Amino acid sequence: MSLDVLDRLSINQITVKSWNLEETIRGCARAGIHHVGLWLENIAETGLDRTSQLLAAHDMAVSSVCRGGFFTGETATERAAALENNRLAVDLTAGVGCDVLYLVCGGVPASRDIVGARAAVVDGIAELVPYARERGVRLAIEPLNPVLCGERSVIVTLAQSLDIAAAYSAADVGVAIDTFNVWWDPRVLDDIERAGDRVISYQVCDWLVPLPHPVWGRGIPGDGVIDFAPITRAVTATGYDGAIEVEIFNEKVWATDPDDVLAILKQRFSTIF
Amino acid sequence: MSLDVLDRLSINQITVKSWNLEETIRGCARAGIHHVGLWLENIAETGLDRTSQLLAAHDMAVSSVCRGGFFTGETATERAAALENNRLAVDLTAGVGCDVLYLVCGGVPASRDIVGARAAVVDGIAELVPYARERGVRLAIEPLNPVLCGERSVIVTLAQSLDIAAAYSAADVGVAIDTFNVWWDPRVLDDIERAGDRVISYQVCDWLVPLPHPVWGRGIPGDGVIDFAPITRAVTATGYDGAIEVEIFNEKVWATDPDDVLAILKQRFSTIF
Repeated sequence: MSLDVLDRLSINQITVKSWNLEETIRGCARAGIHHVGLWLENIAETGLDRTSQLLAAHDMAVSSVCRGGFFTGETATERAAALENNRLAVDLTAGVGCDVLYLVCGGVPASRDIVGARAAVVDGIAELVPYARERGVRLAIEPLNPVLCGERSVIVTLAQSLDIAAAYSAADVGVAIDTFNVWWDPRVLDDIERAGDRVISYQVCDWLVPLPHPVWGRGIPGDGVIDFAPITRAVTATGYDGAIEVEIFNEKVWATDPDDVLAILKQRFSTIF
Repeated sequence: MSLDVLDRLSINQITVKSWNLEETIRGCARAGIHHVGLWLENIAETGLDRTSQLLAAHDMAVSSVCRGGFFTGETATERAAALENNRLAVDLTAGVGCDVLYLVCGGVPASRDIVGARAAVVDGIAELVPYARERGVRLAIEPLNPVLCGERSVIVTLAQSLDIAAAYSAADVGVAIDTFNVWWDPRVLDDIERAGDRVISYQVCDWLVPLPHPVWGRGIPGDGVIDFAPITRAVTATGYDGAIEVEIFNEKVWATDPDDVLAILKQRFSTIF
């Protein structure tokens, strides 16, 4: 087992969905894990002060916050609401001492205009960058797996994320690499190399065969068909040495005792990463 | 309604799954449809002679046969069996008077070696081309939607299909464009233009939101979020004027009376294509 790799293990809160934020922080600390990925809803539910207290008391760092984005509304009202939500997301991210806010950019709108939706993502990010920069929060454009193009994100390749990010300093706008989202892409290793210091988050989970569900069917690393080593090597080669965050949406995992899930993840980490 | 577009409507047999091959041919003829896409299993079940008789008797052309491929087995035995199956597929395709055989290239093998699997696809096609060429059958490399990368096809973008096809004459190896498979791809319109005369089949179905199932969740055109017009325009601009084939895997559609499904498809065609 590589101790330094285990030190990089982060647990995204959705992976232990049956725990609330306090239980997640306590549970991870109990397991010797020092990083968590948090969701805005859970921070809001627990309160920013209490969240900060819990993090400090358990020597827990926040590797990422999800999620801002959803730029593809087609009315001025929808876009204004998204901007407002995104500013709040930046505030909460900074508030928990984290500098990485995930952007899930939004799916195909009612008009079916995917080209217009992609342009709206570019515009929405442009509006958000100055606010985030002032608060020391880097925006992580996350390409989602194309299976989620309709529902969640018209940004589906790392190449697209990089094209958008290119307009900004890497200190302000980076990309998030999640194995579930990028593993299928024949260009992924080249595009990770291209990303360089824009890689600001690395999330992992597996692709199960057969896929149990388009959204809730992600797997524990080792249970699926993803070859993690080449992707991890490419990410490492960019200089990224931050957390490796496990984010799993899976009803079977959610039905498992979270303490057991953490034990399994630690064991898998020792062999896969 | 554009009469010539309706004349191009083809029904892939899986769309009317509760019908056998004879019922499909008779049902399409009754609906004034003159093209069908056939599956090898159904041709084998009906017999080649009887299939040919039925096609001739109802003035029905076969727009495509699916499917060969599955090149990603990792043992010599698996690869030899795939080659044998693919040669039989070529024979049956030629036997029904069709010159387009779909290739579903195969998913990720047990080793998880996606790079090796992609190389095996290149090798498998190279082995098959001479046999198909001699029998007047063009191989249509079909990129599948990345949701099927694990289970069915490590070839997931039109760009990949074109890179493989480039080693051969367009008269021998082309590509199959299915809206379900390519609609999400930010490069798709450019890559269709690049494909030019390699576009030898155009299949359509919609992407439903939410997606009911990773495999069996395809939609009737108009029920989902795909903007068909730009894709159809790009396909038409290549010079392709062959069949527009509806291939729908969907349990609700399969539970509907196939005569009603054909009536709905004819109505949708009159407005969407």
